Parts: sequence; structure tokens; C-alpha cells
Amino acid sequence: MSTKFESRISAQSLKQFCARALEKLEVSPQDARIVADVLVEADLRGIPSHGMARLGKYYAERIRLGAIIARPQPRVLSETQTTATIDAGAGLGHPVAYRAMQEAIKKALNAGTGFVAVRNSNHYGIAGYYAMMALEHNCIGFTMTNGAALVVPTYARVPLLGTNPIAVAAPGGKSPPFVLDMSTSTVTWGKLELAERLEKPIHTGWAIDQSGRLSNNAHEVMEGVRHRIGGGLLPLGGASEILGGHKGYGLAMWVDIFAGILAGAAYSTMVDVWDPAHPTPSYVGHFFGAWRIDAFRPIDEFNAAMDDLQRRLEQAPKADGQERIYIHGQKELENKERNQREGIPFPAHILADLRALAHDLHVEYDLE
Amino acid sequence: MSTKFESRISAQSLKQFCARALEKLEVSPQDARIVADVLVEADLRGIPSHGMARLGKYYAERIRLGAIIARPQPRVLSETQTTATIDAGAGLGHPVAYRAMQEAIKKALNAGTGFVAVRNSNHYGIAGYYAMMALEHNCIGFTMTNGAALVVPTYARVPLLGTNPIAVAAPGGKSPPFVLDMSTSTVTWGKLELAERLEKPIHTGWAIDQSGRLSNNAHEVMEGVRHRIGGGLLPLGGASEILGGHKGYGLAMWVDIFAGILAGAAYSTMVDVWDPAHPTPSYVGHFFGAWRIDAFRPIDEFNAAMDDLQRRLEQAPKADGQERIYIHGQKELENKERNQREGIPFPAHILADLRALAHDLHVEYDLE
Repeated sequence: MSTKFESRISAQSLKQFCARALEKLEVSPQDARIVADVLVEADLRGIPSHGMARLGKYYAERIRLGAIIARPQPRVLSETQTTATIDAGAGLGHPVAYRAMQEAIKKALNAGTGFVAVRNSNHYGIAGYYAMMALEHNCIGFTMTNGAALVVPTYARVPLLGTNPIAVAAPGGKSPPFVLDMSTSTVTWGKLELAERLEKPIHTGWAIDQSGRLSNNAHEVMEGVRHRIGGGLLPLGGASEILGGHKGYGLAMWVDIFAGILAGAAYSTMVDVWDPAHPTPSYVGHFFGAWRIDAFRPIDEFNAAMDDLQRRLEQAPKADGQERIYIHGQKELENKERNQREGIPFPAHILADLRALAHDLHVEYDLE
Repeated sequence: MSTKFESRISAQSLKQFCARALEKLEVSPQDARIVADVLVEADLRGIPSHGMARLGKYYAERIRLGAIIARPQPRVLSETQTTATIDAGAGLGHPVAYRAMQEAIKKALNAGTGFVAVRNSNHYGIAGYYAMMALEHNCIGFTMTNGAALVVPTYARVPLLGTNPIAVAAPGGKSPPFVLDMSTSTVTWGKLELAERLEKPIHTGWAIDQSGRLSNNAHEVMEGVRHRIGGGLLPLGGASEILGGHKGYGLAMWVDIFAGILAGAAYSTMVDVWDPAHPTPSYVGHFFGAWRIDAFRPIDEFNAAMDDLQRRLEQAPKADGQERIYIHGQKELENKERNQREGIPFPAHILADLRALAHDLHVEYDLE
């Protein structure tokens, strides 16, 4: 990120502000606390695109326009010993996701594995948050979510799938946990938004324009998507089969099948790109899972092997000019440790947005 | 593939020949039939790198050198209602994989979901075979396997992970099933072997050499790996984080954690590159899973949505010069239909290998 930041703000203040704002929008105190925790966790871990920056312009806007229901009535539609399907009632994604993951973990602790599908929901923040909930229970956590169609399948010219992230978290023994949290596209929409705002070119291989050609112009790509003309992000692996674009496309399909179709949620182009002039619920779906490690192997053995795997990776010879081989989740954990000590860095324009939100909602602004 | 083929051979003859050869190597008739079915299915589906071409030079060689046990004694190490862990006894991967997947499906039919981990095993052929076993039971099938360290993690200079494939199969309603079967590297080792044999350059982005630079020379890359000097295949997404190489690396880690560590199998560089001068068992692991669809949602609704998703993809505008947007598994199903009608095409050099194998083993050769 090349954005200059102005202030470092404590996680505690941010969570309180977030909850205060959401409660003013009629979100229940319990739900508001969960959303605040998920959003600030993203900022703590150095993923600002999924943190407090979304509070006003994403969640609050949708609640005010009626596209997200502040006090939903979630319902369990079906349940077995190891599975459940929940209708989120078009509420915020985070509270239903938190409870669905809790349920998946409970089932795994009882029966070895547990999986919960959620329909009729909304954006749930960083996927990794829910996968990581399994760690303290010595389970491996798993989640997927679908989203607005921004990604162009191999050999298509229009976006038909979301950036559809997958997250997996596994305990790391004495080492940090393994936390994979990845969109199945080369990059997320946020990278285009940033490039558009800074008027910088995007890397070749991130996106294609309306005619299907590789584009370095974020604005051009985004306009094509916004006006439903064509173009969009590329799946992981790029535009053709040569470097495996069909694999990223396949991973995005997998997510759409689990989080969309199996859950009974919207999928593909049914999840529309947001247009404040025509605010509609997103109807997205999520999928959550947990595997209890000692159902397969004693936890001590698992932990020792995870330590050994991480050691092998860390001690391996590096590519020229590289000092470190990262394991997934390490960077984010180090960000979190620093941001907990020093406060979370925020650029001035995000703070200005939060100040404006506080003003609009008539809640106290105490972040600076 | 640019290799010229000489003959089209019936699947039935190939399966009989394969079983005959394996039985002569002391493999049980039941196990030999399973291996034959998995290998010929790969050839039928147009994946010759994982078919009968491997019978002599891969499986038979390892059995004869004692690295694969012809008549293993697999043992169930632990079991719950939804999970099991199996020691394969260093036998062929296919029979234990077939039975493990059967067990996962049985558990899913009873309890909603089922997962089986396998350790101390060997190469199991195409991952998609096992995932597809779930389809006739209206389950979604899933499998992963690890393998010899051929893939260089982001910012490393040596291979530390296998090409570690993931396969997912979901019923497609009236449409063909969705069958994703992908290595988590940009390409498989087989593509380098083919380029080396034909003395053709490889695409930029497939592999790096010993110094960590992108290489177009398959022979150079393979020599570096064989002599444990460095270099190897790149993870899906390429050499850096710019196009998401860390995501492919993360997917390969996920597979190593499930198929290797959770199963109690070898992982990372513990799975050595094969050297006939020092034949050692591979100790690889697999992971299998099944989710019963109607535990989440009525199967009719699921099927209707799968049909609709496929229609949306097929009818979408194509990129310039493209006539079709493929859904995963479609090409392979079309190959199978044609090869069942017309016989499976085999190049002369593979048939020569099979003829030589028949001669060595003193079994009848009746493929031409």
C-alpha cells in the first residue's frame, strides 16, 4: 500500500466506535460486537480493504438502503448430526457466519466433522476469521463465500463468478497456525479500486477489458463491469489454460457450488454488482467446516509434524534477493502483534469517512 | 499432445492386459482390477500421463524393486462415525484409495459427511476417479494426495512440495457433472517430461532453474530436481505474489497438511524423487471426503441450480476467437465417449513399452 497514513488507533477504540455506529442503525448489541470484532481483526492483520474502511460506504449504506436487514430473523432450514443449513434473513454476514462456524465446530467436537451452509446472507468480511475460530478447539477450520460476479471464466468475455475466497486454518504446534485466506482470482477488486483512486496502472494478468484483452487500466476494467459491458478480474492462473487459468476458474466454481448452490443461495450473475440507485439484497451464501484433528491422528503428533513442516520451509534456500519464505498467516500475525502494540495505522481519507459517518448517525467520534 | 498415435485400443483389452500384468507381479485379482479400472479411466478421459503409460515404468518397476508392496496388509488405525485413518501398508495407491472413498461415501450416507485419511501409500492415479465415485450416491466427492517434492514455494529456490492435486466432483443435474481435478502447480511434471522428450521449450512461468530464474528448458529444470540442486515447477499463480503464486503455494500446503500431516503420511521433502538406484517406498498420503447433498438441500433443487449454472456459463459471450466456455470435466467426458466408441489412441512408443513389459513378465500381449 502506498497510501500515507496519519494516525495509529487502538483496536479497542475502533471496536467500540464500530459497535456504536451499528447499534444506531438498529443492529443488536450482540451482532454489532461480532461485526466490530471481525472488521477490526482485518485491520489488525493488515487487510484494510476488509476492515473499518467498509463500515460506512459498504455496510451502513446497505443497511440504510434496506439491502441489508439490521435485525434479521435467521432460521435453521435443515440439520443433521454433522450438517446444517441456515437462512440468514438477509442480515449482516458476520454474525450469522460467526454462529454458523460455532455450530460447525460443535458438530466436529461431537461427531468428528461438522459443516454448515448459509444462504440469503451478505458480505462476511475476512474469511480467515471464521476458519481461525476452529484453532483453539484443535480443529482445522474451513470456509468459503461467494460474491458479486467480477471474475471472467476462461474463454468468456464477461464476469460470471465472484472472487469467491477459500480459507483454511490449521494449528501450527509451537509455530504460528497455517492460515490460508485467498480469493480464487489473481487479485481482489480492492486492488483495482486502489489503482483507480491512485491513477496507477495495474499489472498485466490481473484483468481483461470488454473485448477480452489484457488491460493495465483499472478504471477501464471497472467501468466495463459496472456498466455490465464485459471484462473483469482474471481467475488465479490468468487468461488462458497455459498457466492454469482454468484451475482458478475451477476453484471459483467449487466455491459457487458449495457457498451458492449447496447452500441454496444466489450464485453466478444472480449476485449482482452493487448499484446504490437500485439497492437489492445480495443473497450470497457461505460454507463453513471443521475437522477434529484427533479424529484422524493424535494432536501431539499433528502439532509436531506442523512444526517440522514449517521448519523445513523456513530453513530452505531462498531465491536470489529474498530473505524469507513466508508461511500463510505469518505476515498477518506479525502485523497484528505490531498493531496491537502500536495501534492500527489509518490513512486520513478513511478517518474522514468514519468522521462523516459518525456525524450522519449522530454518534460520538473519538478515534483521533 | 503432438505425439503421433498408431492404434486405437479398446478399454476392455487394456483393462484385461493391465490386470494380467499386475497379477503376475503378485497383486491380488481384486486389487489388480481396481488399478486397471483407474488407469484405463485416465486414458479414456484423455489424460494419458496418468494411464497405462505408467504401468511398466512406474508401478511395475516399483513393485519389482520392492518399493511398492504387491500384497499389502492395510489397517484401520482409528475410526469415528464420520472419519477414519488407514495405513495402506505401502501397497499400490489405487485399491486403498478406492476402498477409502467407498468408506467416506458410506459414512456420508449415514451421517451426512464422511472423511478418510490414508498414510503409507503410493501414487493413486487420477484424483478425479475417486471424487467421481460420490456422484451416483448424490454426494459431492473430494480428494487430495501429496507427492514427491517438485514445486518451489514462493521465494524459495528448491522444491519443497508436491504437485499435490485437489479433485472435487458434484452432480450436474441433466448436465454433465462438475469434475475439477487439478494439480496445485501451474503444470504437472508430465508436461516437462513431454517437452524434454520432444526437445521443445517450455512456457515461461512453468518452472524455475537452480538459480531461481524462470526457465524455458525442461531438461535443465529436471536435472536440477533430479540431482537435488534446486529449481522446479512453480505453484499455480507463478513465481511471485504479483499474480498470486503464494495462493498456489498455499493450496499445495493445504494438501500437504491434509494428505500428509493429518493422515500421518510423509510430507514435503520426506516424499523423495524416485531414484531406481535407491528404491524407497514413497509413504505418500491421501485424503477423501463426501458430503451428502440432501443433508443440506433437496437434491432436485441442487440439480436444477447446477443445470442453470452450467447454462449461464455456456451461453455467456465468448472471448474473441473462442467458441466455447468449458465446464470442468466436460472435455474429459467427451473424450471418454469418443474413446469408448472408437478405442483409445496410443502412440507407438507406449505400446512398445507395454509389449516389452508383457515379454518381461511372460504374459500374453494382445493389444495390437
